[in-house]
Amino acid sequence: MRDIVFIERDPYAPIRHCYTVSKILYQGKSPYQEIQVIESPEFGRMLILDGVVQLDEKYEFLYHEYLAHVPLHAHPNPRNVLIIGGGDGGTLREVLKHDIVERAVLVDIDKEVIEVSKKYLPTLSVGFQDPRAIVVNEDGYKYVQDYENEFDVIIVDSTDPVGFAHVLTTEDFFRHVYKALKEDGIFVAQTESIHYHLEMVSNIQQRLKKVFPIVDLYTSVIPIYAGYWWTFSIASKKYPVRTPAREVKVQTKIYDADMHEYAFLPESFYNKIVNGEYKY
Amino acid sequence: MRDIVFIERDPYAPIRHCYTVSKILYQGKSPYQEIQVIESPEFGRMLILDGVVQLDEKYEFLYHEYLAHVPLHAHPNPRNVLIIGGGDGGTLREVLKHDIVERAVLVDIDKEVIEVSKKYLPTLSVGFQDPRAIVVNEDGYKYVQDYENEFDVIIVDSTDPVGFAHVLTTEDFFRHVYKALKEDGIFVAQTESIHYHLEMVSNIQQRLKKVFPIVDLYTSVIPIYAGYWWTFSIASKKYPVRTPAREVKVQTKIYDADMHEYAFLPESFYNKIVNGEYKY
Repeated sequence: MRDIVFIERDPYAPIRHCYTVSKILYQGKSPYQEIQVIESPEFGRMLILDGVVQLDEKYEFLYHEYLAHVPLHAHPNPRNVLIIGGGDGGTLREVLKHDIVERAVLVDIDKEVIEVSKKYLPTLSVGFQDPRAIVVNEDGYKYVQDYENEFDVIIVDSTDPVGFAHVLTTEDFFRHVYKALKEDGIFVAQTESIHYHLEMVSNIQQRLKKVFPIVDLYTSVIPIYAGYWWTFSIASKKYPVRTPAREVKVQTKIYDADMHEYAFLPESFYNKIVNGEYKY
Repeated sequence: MRDIVFIERDPYAPIRHCYTVSKILYQGKSPYQEIQVIESPEFGRMLILDGVVQLDEKYEFLYHEYLAHVPLHAHPNPRNVLIIGGGDGGTLREVLKHDIVERAVLVDIDKEVIEVSKKYLPTLSVGFQDPRAIVVNEDGYKYVQDYENEFDVIIVDSTDPVGFAHVLTTEDFFRHVYKALKEDGIFVAQTESIHYHLEMVSNIQQRLKKVFPIVDLYTSVIPIYAGYWWTFSIASKKYPVRTPAREVKVQTKIYDADMHEYAFLPESFYNKIVNGEYKY
């Protein structure tokens, strides 16, 4: 009963993960990507886009809590939040745990991911029912260019930066983000792993440093993402980011004030990563 | 040219890893286990015991540096070191980087792992040539019972605690280790991952606390070990362990004084793990 497996094909990983499949819940194709939802006995439901696992129900909090709560706690007053990507709703759910947030705009180019999540991933998509959530099905890269001095926090919750998500790691995009943020705004993006994507991490950090005065990197260990020691690149116009600026009141599984600080690497190791001095 | 794969069968993991194989260098069977050495284009040579990857040439430093250098730097004067297991030689290599070490006894029950490593894994097995290295092919569980007040540091570098390595995580064994250590000795063991083996980690910690006055846990993110957020349980009779007691002079890829401290989790999260308050 255990031999039906999903074998991941992640073009950015030197390893392939095999998951036992107990049920195939959905298989379809949007204009942008192939979408699958499977059920695994060990991980719960899993969302797969173009053959790459995006999330599982059991461990997704290790990604979504860190992506949302670090920038939102580094900001003393995050009222207006923009999420680019994140159609599954996990990041939106975490953002809306902050009572201080008045409006969370989620811009995902692929409407069908959102519909699939609403139907098959109820614990992820719960935030779509919140009146503070606004969903826009547009290209996030273009969307952000229409705004100036608008958002307190901008979060990029994208697929791997290959194909149509690649533009979300360019200096050009970071300049648009800078403009769309208020004068004390904070930006964060998932930026792959230290172990398998070190050069990409370093390049993104260097590009961000050309645009923002405060740039840093924090991490979470995420089992379903090959590379595991996952990075989030954070950039701030004004506030320091290594410690929470507000009391942590949100209910979480792992994130708290101590884990916020611990997510940031020692400065010495961080500098080695950015400067290309840490090598395998 | 990329479709020959090794599919790992790790009885303790909810996922299977697939590695591309460019060459099979060795396949054999000792009285204790099946031994394979393969070559992977992305990971270099890999040692596989009973179907579970033990190490790869590219990322092994993330395991061996942490296993050896944290206890050896927590101890101000580690002259006499015992390694139980570790037949590949990686831990021995790191231990012998310390000039202060006068004698490193490696007790591995399986002679053939050592021979295979000497032949196929030269970067790992280099320490066997050092005159300070003493190799004993015995059962480490029994070996340690013959000593009292003998070793400064005892390191368990075992396979997963299933089958014959299981006894190395019992309270009984920890009491023998306590006795074999000098009055200021330090013990360390690899103790699986936070993500996939949380209960085991917690149980081992609780057992150690029955025997040693100072018990702690530190981590390294290791890509080839399913669970990734790998733990090392450390127990000390006298010295605190969270900071190095000596200047770090060894040449390493990642370990240094800052990474020593960073390897330890925040106290609050550590306590949640040990007390079973952190849950998935």
